[in-house]
Amino acid sequence: MTEPTFQPRTTVEQVEESTDLAPKFGPNGLMPCITSDAQSGEVLMLGWMNDEAFRLTITTGEAHYFSRTRQTVWHKGATSGLVQKLVEARIDDDQDALWIKVAVTGSGASCHVGYRSCFYRSVPFGAAAGKPLEFREPQKTFDPKLVYGDAPNPTLL
Amino acid sequence: MTEPTFQPRTTVEQVEESTDLAPKFGPNGLMPCITSDAQSGEVLMLGWMNDEAFRLTITTGEAHYFSRTRQTVWHKGATSGLVQKLVEARIDDDQDALWIKVAVTGSGASCHVGYRSCFYRSVPFGAAAGKPLEFREPQKTFDPKLVYGDAPNPTLL
Repeated sequence: MTEPTFQPRTTVEQVEESTDLAPKFGPNGLMPCITSDAQSGEVLMLGWMNDEAFRLTITTGEAHYFSRTRQTVWHKGATSGLVQKLVEARIDDDQDALWIKVAVTGSGASCHVGYRSCFYRSVPFGAAAGKPLEFREPQKTFDPKLVYGDAPNPTLL
Repeated sequence: MTEPTFQPRTTVEQVEESTDLAPKFGPNGLMPCITSDAQSGEVLMLGWMNDEAFRLTITTGEAHYFSRTRQTVWHKGATSGLVQKLVEARIDDDQDALWIKVAVTGSGASCHVGYRSCFYRSVPFGAAAGKPLEFREPQKTFDPKLVYGDAPNPTLL
């Protein structure tokens, strides 16, 4: 296992067309990461990685994120047991976004509210635009109170 | 068709557990949007929407994004003809990220470099961490120069 080296970004061609890993983190030092279930293809969550979380994810093969609420790197599943094991990692054209395909241990859920996916509600559109959101998962897979206890909810208003 | 109303965010329970659409845009006024192919499940791109782009996407049923490079709302496919028609729209638990499933008109590509997906390269991990990126699409689906001409490349260093 080699510690990944992030290359300096020199040209648009290098960033888009080469095999150099030259990631660009946003002004807050974070890069968005799309996480999908490797088996079903379902998008489970959108997380954020800083330089350290991205390195840890690549070297360990388990998803690490940066919690914007707690301002710390976070090994997904450390509390809940729902670890996300990498099956594949992709980076986009301009190297400022990631997509990881994962196998989730345990129940397979990834959402702190208790659902499998964080994207458990649909937004009506077109002729139905303006109607209420619709729940798309029949029920929660776990009770967040039992899993997280009194830990503060990461959702901010 | 009703213009969608964005509700004020009052409680964590409302945001996570209700059918109110109460989106939260980031400090830059933007929300990340994951766009996947409704048929294959493949993630095509990660875009950004401001309030206006999100409203336009919901009301028209075609993806609109905010270009951070050009600082303007952008109807995806206006230049290339590769319009993204919404099949489903989802919002996440804390309502600060979107996932849209789309059917792309024309060749089905969504990447300005010419590939189907913007995520055309994989990042080696675990025992292979540190190795060069690997191309995952056999070839480009179009020649960007023919489609975009002299328009400036949106990739920034």
